[in-house]
Amino acid sequence: MRIALDAMGGDHAPAVTVAGAVQAARLYNIEVILVGDPDAIQAELAKHDTRGLSLPVVPASQVIEMTDHVDAVRAKKDASMNVGARLVRRGEADGFVSAGHSGAVMAAALFNIGRIPGIKRPALGTIYPTVKGQCFVLDVGANTECTPLYLLQFGLMGSVFMERVYGIPRPTVALVSNGEEEDKGSQLVRQTTPLLRDSGLNFVGNAEGKDVPKGFADVIVTDGFTGNVVIKLSEGLVVALALIIINELEAGVLGKLALVLAIPAAVLALPALLLSIPALRRVVKRFYYAEFGGAHLMGVNGPVIVAHGRSNVKAIQNAIRVCKESVEHDVVGTIHAGARDLS
Amino acid sequence: MRIALDAMGGDHAPAVTVAGAVQAARLYNIEVILVGDPDAIQAELAKHDTRGLSLPVVPASQVIEMTDHVDAVRAKKDASMNVGARLVRRGEADGFVSAGHSGAVMAAALFNIGRIPGIKRPALGTIYPTVKGQCFVLDVGANTECTPLYLLQFGLMGSVFMERVYGIPRPTVALVSNGEEEDKGSQLVRQTTPLLRDSGLNFVGNAEGKDVPKGFADVIVTDGFTGNVVIKLSEGLVVALALIIINELEAGVLGKLALVLAIPAAVLALPALLLSIPALRRVVKRFYYAEFGGAHLMGVNGPVIVAHGRSNVKAIQNAIRVCKESVEHDVVGTIHAGARDLS
Repeated sequence: MRIALDAMGGDHAPAVTVAGAVQAARLYNIEVILVGDPDAIQAELAKHDTRGLSLPVVPASQVIEMTDHVDAVRAKKDASMNVGARLVRRGEADGFVSAGHSGAVMAAALFNIGRIPGIKRPALGTIYPTVKGQCFVLDVGANTECTPLYLLQFGLMGSVFMERVYGIPRPTVALVSNGEEEDKGSQLVRQTTPLLRDSGLNFVGNAEGKDVPKGFADVIVTDGFTGNVVIKLSEGLVVALALIIINELEAGVLGKLALVLAIPAAVLALPALLLSIPALRRVVKRFYYAEFGGAHLMGVNGPVIVAHGRSNVKAIQNAIRVCKESVEHDVVGTIHAGARDLS
Repeated sequence: MRIALDAMGGDHAPAVTVAGAVQAARLYNIEVILVGDPDAIQAELAKHDTRGLSLPVVPASQVIEMTDHVDAVRAKKDASMNVGARLVRRGEADGFVSAGHSGAVMAAALFNIGRIPGIKRPALGTIYPTVKGQCFVLDVGANTECTPLYLLQFGLMGSVFMERVYGIPRPTVALVSNGEEEDKGSQLVRQTTPLLRDSGLNFVGNAEGKDVPKGFADVIVTDGFTGNVVIKLSEGLVVALALIIINELEAGVLGKLALVLAIPAAVLALPALLLSIPALRRVVKRFYYAEFGGAHLMGVNGPVIVAHGRSNVKAIQNAIRVCKESVEHDVVGTIHAGARDLS
């Protein structure tokens, strides 16, 4: 297994990317190909114990900056994300990971690797924690304008992902709407619902916003605008709630107790804080991007992971892990087969 | 002050609506006009102590059911929500509240009261709790398809609301997008951003989903599809997180402690649960519809509150309260004046 990593991509590259690659190579016993400026990469590699690890360097003379326009993908032919994507196209890597400019990563993947035949548009998909476990939400940002056919194909791709990677037979699929009834929804939703219903996928209906965290379906299909709002609102709300709960714990009951009990309140409070704050932290962590390692660029003809620009070492390591899982479960090959029936 | 209440609207009408009206009349010292089947209303009134309260009954011979189509508003001319809305048009009530079929309430308000001159489309707006306090989100469901002008006017109406009702001078206004940069966003968002920027409103830019609960702006403008997903996802996520946190508290740390400490764990756990669960409950309550009393139908030429179909007595009471606040602060009149500049 050889995963190519854009060593120059992300806010903290190449220090964090190289460190993440070293950890992933050791932990998962795979080859991680570091793409970028060889001198900068070697300088970072020298800071780690890499004995016995397979971490080849493939040079790329250019970098697409976070501030660049997406068009830079065409202008900078030798940018690390172009070189990395080409390794996948040529079969020299099994998958590609980048924490660089996300729009540019998508463009580089499309430009160099191309779409799976029959798939109209790639979509960004991400795992979303629910009360029952998790679901896969797509599109979370690749396509702000969609057609019913795009959404139908997102349903297929998400279904393949959950079946192959999470081992769920016939995953349930739902479409985000502003009401469960079929007469609700935007024009796009009302046109897509019958397509999903007749698709052969395990479509279980339209999901309101509240149904997503409940675990209403294994696959949540939506356009890239709404999906982006869903995942970012969730991230923001979890953090906001943790803050509000901590404030409430401190100011609310504790404040009132403190008035009555003064010092004994602190004694009472201690186990509460010990117990509740780690629990809060675990919950927040379930929503934290670093645990998921990034979004899957579904529909491109090779496994590509778009990691968060702010990725830390753990996030890079996890992004490499999810790329490896996608390769192992042949998500791309399975979509390939399924796309013939749905295009 | 006279607020008309659709006594027949909602899952638990007229028992819950009449009880809510009695509480509101007493608590806020206002007249609540009960619209609907006089016999059914009188039977409910007889269960309460209504001495000294002003609770006149205005008869309506028909009811629009939750299962009716919106067209029922035109067919059932003497439906309670039509009669209630007409009281506002004729100046016989200062505002109208209904927990009935929400699409039908909007239609009845438009049909009988009409739009504020210059306002293209009414929008549903609701208070949303943030880390800093609260913001006003609109549209949360009236218009699944919007134009830039609608969104501009939603910004104006939300701004008037926060200024008049919450006393915030020059409220900040943001537009929901899938990125803060102006080149992000759907076509609708990209066309709306410059309109808001040049509007004279205190526009502070585009907000990602995560910015909403942070309290990025006092007014959050979006189309009715996205806004509906935002509020329903938030409601669902808060409940889901409370469940996940309680599970974590029980299964996680407590489980591990129990293994080691057996009975002492229960002693340790008690204050934690006492402290953390009320805090959780208060947080959940902040997101609970009953506290807000319902959504404001902004842009109609009279104060109209669309309460939740599942409203309990407290929710009805609060819906009447927010309608009264809207009347007191002359939200409609202020929008009227502002709409001349923005239409």
